[in-house]
Order: sequence, then C-alpha cells, then structure tokens
Amino acid sequence: MTTPKISPPVRLDVALAERGYPIFIGSGLIEQAGIQAMDSLGKVSHAFCVSDRSVAATHGKRVNEELIRVGLRVSSVEIPSGEGSKSIEQLGVIWQRMLEERCDRSSVVVAIGGGVIGDLAGFAAATFARGIRLIQVPTTLLSQVDSSVGGKTGINLPQAKNIVGAFWQPSLVLIDLSTLQTLPVREYLSGLAEVVKYGVIMDASFFGWIEQNVKGILERNVDSLSYLIRRSCECKGEVVAKDERETTGLRAILNYGHTFAHALEAATKYGQLLHGEAVSIGMTMAAKLAHQMGRVSKEFVDRQTGLLTALKLPTDWKSENPSHLWKLMQSDKKVHHGQLSFILPSELGRVETVSGVEESAVLKAIME
Amino acid sequence: MTTPKISPPVRLDVALAERGYPIFIGSGLIEQAGIQAMDSLGKVSHAFCVSDRSVAATHGKRVNEELIRVGLRVSSVEIPSGEGSKSIEQLGVIWQRMLEERCDRSSVVVAIGGGVIGDLAGFAAATFARGIRLIQVPTTLLSQVDSSVGGKTGINLPQAKNIVGAFWQPSLVLIDLSTLQTLPVREYLSGLAEVVKYGVIMDASFFGWIEQNVKGILERNVDSLSYLIRRSCECKGEVVAKDERETTGLRAILNYGHTFAHALEAATKYGQLLHGEAVSIGMTMAAKLAHQMGRVSKEFVDRQTGLLTALKLPTDWKSENPSHLWKLMQSDKKVHHGQLSFILPSELGRVETVSGVEESAVLKAIME
Repeated sequence: MTTPKISPPVRLDVALAERGYPIFIGSGLIEQAGIQAMDSLGKVSHAFCVSDRSVAATHGKRVNEELIRVGLRVSSVEIPSGEGSKSIEQLGVIWQRMLEERCDRSSVVVAIGGGVIGDLAGFAAATFARGIRLIQVPTTLLSQVDSSVGGKTGINLPQAKNIVGAFWQPSLVLIDLSTLQTLPVREYLSGLAEVVKYGVIMDASFFGWIEQNVKGILERNVDSLSYLIRRSCECKGEVVAKDERETTGLRAILNYGHTFAHALEAATKYGQLLHGEAVSIGMTMAAKLAHQMGRVSKEFVDRQTGLLTALKLPTDWKSENPSHLWKLMQSDKKVHHGQLSFILPSELGRVETVSGVEESAVLKAIME
Repeated sequence: MTTPKISPPVRLDVALAERGYPIFIGSGLIEQAGIQAMDSLGKVSHAFCVSDRSVAATHGKRVNEELIRVGLRVSSVEIPSGEGSKSIEQLGVIWQRMLEERCDRSSVVVAIGGGVIGDLAGFAAATFARGIRLIQVPTTLLSQVDSSVGGKTGINLPQAKNIVGAFWQPSLVLIDLSTLQTLPVREYLSGLAEVVKYGVIMDASFFGWIEQNVKGILERNVDSLSYLIRRSCECKGEVVAKDERETTGLRAILNYGHTFAHALEAATKYGQLLHGEAVSIGMTMAAKLAHQMGRVSKEFVDRQTGLLTALKLPTDWKSENPSHLWKLMQSDKKVHHGQLSFILPSELGRVETVSGVEESAVLKAIME
C-alpha cells in the first residue's frame, strides 16, 4: 500500500453533535491559528496561551504573534516540561493567572505543547468559570495522534495518573506538522506507539501501511506524517464519537496496553519511561497475555513486537517486583466494582474487554 | 392564597433529557436514602459521604447508617463548616481521600450539608475519574431551595467566589424537611432570600403567597416549608432545564441581586455576611438601581424591602467605599467581553438582563 497523497491542510471533523469540532492537519498551520480561531469559535476576544516551556520561545511565540495579529488580547503562561506539571499546584497557578488575566467565557485557552500541556490546560479550561473554550495546538507526535483529540483532560495525584479531570472537548485542534521536525528523537518515536495501537485495535490495513512505511516514518517524511496523523485522528475520532464519556465500553479499546503502561509509569515514578515507551511495553505485555490465554497466535505477538522494534520502541521491561505492578493496576480508573479488566486482541484490528484475568497470568506476561 | 396541601414525599423531576433527575421533598427522607439511591442510580457499590462537620454526627450519621443498611460500602469524610472550605486545599484533601477509599465510576458521592458541601463535594464528584455520580442531601434551607438543584459545583479562589467549577448534575436530590427544625435561626432566615428571589424574578403569585405566610414560614411550619421548597425547586428546575449551562442567557435571571451580593461577600472576606443575607442586600440594591433607571416604581422597591424585612433579613449595608464594591464586580463571572451586566426587575415576576449601566448609578444604589 502506498502513501495516499494529501495536500495539506486536511480537515477532519469529530462528529459530536453540538460538541463537534474540526481538526486541521498541515505544515505551517500555526501561521493560520488566528484566522482558524476566528472561523471556528466565532465570538472570542481574549486568548490565554499555555505553553510548554520547551516550546514557548518557538511555537508558543509563533502562536502568540498570530493571535495578536488578528486583534485578540493575548495572555501567556509557561509551564515547566514534564509529567510533574500535571499537579494540583500547577493547576492552581494556572487558575490564579486566569483570574488575574480576567479570563471569562469569551476567552479561549490555547494549549501549546504535548500531552501534559493539553491535559493540564484543557482541565483548566474545563473548570475555569465552569468551562471556557479550548484550542489544542499539539506540538508532539503523541499529542497530535492521541491526547489532543477526544476531550480527556486532567491531572495526576501523587499515587495515580489522570485520576482527576474532566471530559472537555476542544473547539479546534491545529496540528502543525512543522513542529515535528524539531522534536527530540526519543519523544518522536514515543508517539509512534499510539499510532501502532490504532492499527492493532481497529485497522489491520493501517498496521500494514505502517509496516511498509517504517523508513519514511523514521525520516519524518511529510507525506508519511500527514497520512499517519490523519489516519490516527480518524481512528480516535471515530471511537470518541461513539462513546464520548466511556459509558458504552467502546472507548475502553483505546486503553490497549495502557493498564500495564500506567502501572509501569507509576512504578518508575513517571521519570524513566516516556508515555509512549510505556505503552509500547504495555502493548507487548498485553499481547503476550492474550497469547497465553489462547486469544492470539505467537505470530501475532511477534508481528506486533517486530513493528514496535522496527520503530525503535522498547518492548520489554525486566521487573524485579511484578507483584508491585499488579498492585498498582488495582488503582487504575478502569477498575469497575473492584474488577480489573484488560483490553486484549483477538486478531489484528480487533480487541475485546476481558475481565476476571488471573493475577498469575498477568505476572507471567510481565516476566516473559 | 392558602397553602396547598401536600402529603410528603413530593417528587419533582428536573427535565434534562439524559441528565434529568428526581428531587424528593419530605420529612424523614434520609431514612429512605439507601432505597432511593438504589432506585435512582441502579448499579452502585460504594458511597463516599462528604459531610459538613456541624451535621456529621447527626444527619451525616443517619445517612451513613442507611446506606450501610442497604448493603453499600460506605466511606466518610468530614469537612470544616464555612465558605473557607471551598478551597483548592480542601478539594485536594477530598480527591486524595477518594483515591485512598478506591472511589471509581461505580461509586457515588453523597453530599450532606449546605451549599459549601454541595459545591465542594459536587466538584469533587465532577472531576474524580473525570466524573462520578452525585447525590445531594441538602440540610440547610438555602441549599434545599437553591444550590442542590441545577448542577453548579465549584470552589473559590482567594479573590473570587465560585470562579472554578463545573456543571455537574446530581443523580438524585433528597430534601429532608426534618433537617430544618434544628437549623440555627440566622442560617434558616438566610435561605429565605433566595425564596423571595424566585417570586421577584418569575412568579408574582408565589411572592404574594410568601407575603401571606410569613408567620408559618418563620415558625418553620412543615406545610409551609413543603410548599415553599417545592415551589422554589420548581422555579429553579424550570430555568435550569431551559438553560443548563448558561448559554442562552436565561439562567442569568437566577443571579438577581447576586452581582452585588458577590461583591459584598468578597468585600467582607466571606466572614461577616451569610450568602442569603448578602443576596437580600443585593436584591435591595438591584431594586433601587432599577427604580433609579425608571424600570420599576418606588412601590416595587418598598414591597420587596417590606417582605425581606418581615422575614428578618438585612436590606442595607453602609459602605464606606462603594467604589471598592464596583471594582470587585468587575471580576464577576458574568462579565462578558469586559461588559458587566445586571439582572434588573421590570415588574414583579419579571427581570431582564441590562448592560451598560453607569458606575455612578450603581454607586448611588449602593449608598442610598
């Protein structure tokens, strides 16, 4: 399968009735941020920009200038990079700044950075004045293909990731491919784990396309990126549109590999593994668990591991204390009525929610 | 007009499609809390009770025992009384406890107390695990007729009340009239301000009923209370159903007197005036402002002041620094595009949103 030709910007629409919104994907889109904001949001007089410190002087500045150019009052705040910023303290700092900058319901929060910024600024937008509008300008691959789409926002408590938050859909998502060219290599690769995930959970032919385009993807070829991001956003948008608030169980498929990943991140105190790296390891553990349970073949596990490895992602993690991981999984949000469930593949392109999995099987999948 | 006879419990339904919920009003309803919870919520395995410290040993204990009786796992947390508890710090304490008590989406938060508890516990419910269910058990008149209905939840920042929060509808509201018999007199009277407000903003005949039933109301006669609360909840529910998220402007009518009241509360650092007292003064200021602007007669102002006074509510507040109040009003959430607006009466039972009011007119209404 060759890469479909796309002339940027591409527009996708997340079908959520009155909460629907467009996603634009293309190179140099930040330079259209002001116009797009005016077009998509209608009445807006003030932008409150929340930037990751690592991109504030580059992408953050570009966004600011563009919003000023179209006549908005613009306030800015910079947030230290890293998962540690998804804290009550940092949230309090943002709320306070929003108040000082006289944010109100005619303001829009603009989140510029990766998933941490999107989650944190998104939650601030969801809760200030009981909810104001939000524009996501994701600047990492991970946030472009995952966290900026779908409306999940939130912060961490010391013992649990994303345990506090809100569903709050953005009014607009601007994915500027040019931001990926300067992304550190480890961060870029980390984003690919979620891309592979879409293939495994819902689109076998997309999985095949990724396998055949590893070279272009690793070289950050713009055509490859454009299709890769577009197809990922389509997959995510399709699931979100069908189950916005995780009530039907469908949206849970997006958590493939994540029950393991969240435990791994907690065990390493969010300092050692990037989220995508944890997801890559988690997907491998989930595949092994599925194989143990007779749900998928050894070939399935090997094919998935092969692609993740080709994309230079880690696929194993030697735990000295797998029981500790098991314990951490028990505080996962997906525990219902004390029952932990896993998203496990049944074939390439299809996963199911499986509960009642034995601790011993999980420990074996971790150790294998 | 005589008091309509009602055999408790009365059931009202807030018409919000998939977010609709019942309100039950009656004496001794807490002793039905478990059954009602099972009936209204369906699958629920765990209750996380948040009680105001002042009622924890009484109403809080009654609720707990009842929930245990129907077989739920029950966790409890007590919150110090007073507006000061609507803080980031206290919210953090609750989130942390919810995590420790393994709250998840099959849990329900039960808020037992006045508006502070309902707002705080409601916001915790809105944000833990991105939203879990909520039962309101309001134990003050103010919360029974106002804050427990309508889904507004939130906390304060040091410089602004309710500036952070979420719209989060309860799944059930249980109004037990027996809780009013032990309510301190000043707190009870304070709740009557919002009741009078419904008369002024949308129901002239209800206003007339209140005038004719002052004695029974002050004596906390159960029939009077039952009708008074029922009609108030009907008024509130009607407005909320038409404008859940304050997008059409209709819901703003509930803020009659509140722009002044919020400024008064802020100016006195939330320590001197009860909310209802501030609303009573604020309604009087708003009526005077409306009269000055030629919108209502002197008789209207006197009639409203007369009823508030008969209900032993304060109606004036001598400010040494009215400009300070004006300044505080500018950070009110209802400021749109830098434009402060007021809800002002045009006749008994009808109010309108008025913007572009002169500072001098507002200062005069404050000083008069």
